[in-house]
Amino acid sequence: MTRLTLTEAHELAAAILRHAGFSEAFAQAIAATVTAGERDGCKSHGLWRLLGIVRTLKAGKAVADAEPEVIDQAPSLVRVDAHGGFSQLAFAAGLPLLVDKARHNGIAAMAINRCVHFSALWVEMEALTERGLVALACNPTQAYVAPAGGSRPLFGTNPVAFGWPRAGGHPFVFDFATSAIARGEIELHRRSGAPLPAGWGVDRHGQPSSEAAEVLDHGAMLTFGGHKGSALSAMIELIAGPLIGDLTSLESGAFDGGANALPYHGELIIALDPQRFLGAQADQHLARAEALFEAIQGQGARLPSQRRYEARAKSLVEGVELDDGLYRDLQALLA
Amino acid sequence: MTRLTLTEAHELAAAILRHAGFSEAFAQAIAATVTAGERDGCKSHGLWRLLGIVRTLKAGKAVADAEPEVIDQAPSLVRVDAHGGFSQLAFAAGLPLLVDKARHNGIAAMAINRCVHFSALWVEMEALTERGLVALACNPTQAYVAPAGGSRPLFGTNPVAFGWPRAGGHPFVFDFATSAIARGEIELHRRSGAPLPAGWGVDRHGQPSSEAAEVLDHGAMLTFGGHKGSALSAMIELIAGPLIGDLTSLESGAFDGGANALPYHGELIIALDPQRFLGAQADQHLARAEALFEAIQGQGARLPSQRRYEARAKSLVEGVELDDGLYRDLQALLA
Repeated sequence: MTRLTLTEAHELAAAILRHAGFSEAFAQAIAATVTAGERDGCKSHGLWRLLGIVRTLKAGKAVADAEPEVIDQAPSLVRVDAHGGFSQLAFAAGLPLLVDKARHNGIAAMAINRCVHFSALWVEMEALTERGLVALACNPTQAYVAPAGGSRPLFGTNPVAFGWPRAGGHPFVFDFATSAIARGEIELHRRSGAPLPAGWGVDRHGQPSSEAAEVLDHGAMLTFGGHKGSALSAMIELIAGPLIGDLTSLESGAFDGGANALPYHGELIIALDPQRFLGAQADQHLARAEALFEAIQGQGARLPSQRRYEARAKSLVEGVELDDGLYRDLQALLA
Repeated sequence: MTRLTLTEAHELAAAILRHAGFSEAFAQAIAATVTAGERDGCKSHGLWRLLGIVRTLKAGKAVADAEPEVIDQAPSLVRVDAHGGFSQLAFAAGLPLLVDKARHNGIAAMAINRCVHFSALWVEMEALTERGLVALACNPTQAYVAPAGGSRPLFGTNPVAFGWPRAGGHPFVFDFATSAIARGEIELHRRSGAPLPAGWGVDRHGQPSSEAAEVLDHGAMLTFGGHKGSALSAMIELIAGPLIGDLTSLESGAFDGGANALPYHGELIIALDPQRFLGAQADQHLARAEALFEAIQGQGARLPSQRRYEARAKSLVEGVELDDGLYRDLQALLA
């Protein structure tokens, strides 16, 4: 294992991105996200992700120096055209206007269009909770998942995230895929030959399948939570696809055309201002939310973000560890 | 079985509500909702529900002639104080302002406060999709459900609903509880002595339990979808509870104080206007949503609202059937 401080991890990531041809603004913004992933123990959104990011640029599926364009679409709507760049700069460009609109109007939405995205949504939720806002976000990905009762890939792994600000502490944040499991987990089962647990996928006839190869090559993954999860995944396709004038997961897959790039699509973010909802009573009602969190933890259950914050506290002191294979692959990107 | 036309069903419901002491406005509004439930094959929200509605009024847990008060809270926020009445009149009172705000600003929210609610959310979603809006709604209920990893009732059955308008056809609508199963289903298992399927509930120690009595009396129900469903249920507690200055499910249960009334709490509704998001391109992008629906149905999967629309088409022609026991119980409410 190779141990890096968070600063070293960020600098390594930025150097790789710069070397690949990204503008300095993208190098810094993407490096910040993957370092946050590594720091928070989300290895799938950590420095490993740089391999896919560089592959996406080399495949011509991302614009290395795109300048996001912020459009004041309506009194409570911000649109950001990412012009083919990664989502991070588009999010940062639109954030101030989204925050202003949410604070003024009580609720506001931001649509990010035409961006390359790797769904590190919790980072965005934290940017909004830091500003005292409640936030929701979702996006399609590429079609891997069948609707409940179906047999063919149509939905993406479609993540949804939520953030709730907490005075003097980490926010309440969740961020999960609406697929039953990450595609990478099924790939691991293919490699090992282990059977898939029930509920992960179906074969070409839409029947439950425990064979990873059948699910990946001929059938489809499933959503979490049966028909309810499937309904949520359809909602995400709609509100972060056609509603914002951007691609569904099926269309994003067609755009990829087998390049195996990170997906290109849009994202919908909704921000709500507790101060506008509650006025002078805000503190009193936010205290009742704290009582809910205490009741969750008081019966031995975990808050969804707890593991991430524990990993973060450790990483801030000890730095992060990359396995040697990954570290070599990253160094190779600098050659 | 007793067969009634929809008009007869509505008139029976309105007569019962009037006889119980509800104002004419409430009698009509609640009768419309329970008739819609009966019509759409949602028996649990059909005329059977009148028994609980009358019980709630007799227990002093609803105001029979409350006049909802609409508050223009912020440019994109409507608040409706139901003043202790059932939710239907509050929703109707706030709807025009919510629609205006969504159309003008692109997105708007309505908080209904201090209402008695029985979560027929799909009816509300249809009222918004009829006006061309995309809509989301959720509310807490009373505490029956443990958070993932817990052992004690904290969350409600917390329904979430979504609506998407479709030109010239029924809207895409879903409406489901975030509990794994309705509490009534577990009651039925207690009566029959049948073991509960996995995932429905836990015992007093938080361990999976197949015993209905243990789950209902000492343990707790579970959410659908494991920790993901649990996170969504927590979100609903927060955004339709403290965020709108209203009760959590645990607080709503305390308010009930064993009266076994329908729950008293708030509701959050969010409306988004595709015309404001998309401008002149709205038709083109809404057509892509239609392609998604066709792809769902084209692989043999159902749209979430399909069963409801089939039942509705049948009921409009044939009327509805009440079993004789229920019909007698309803007649007894007129005595």
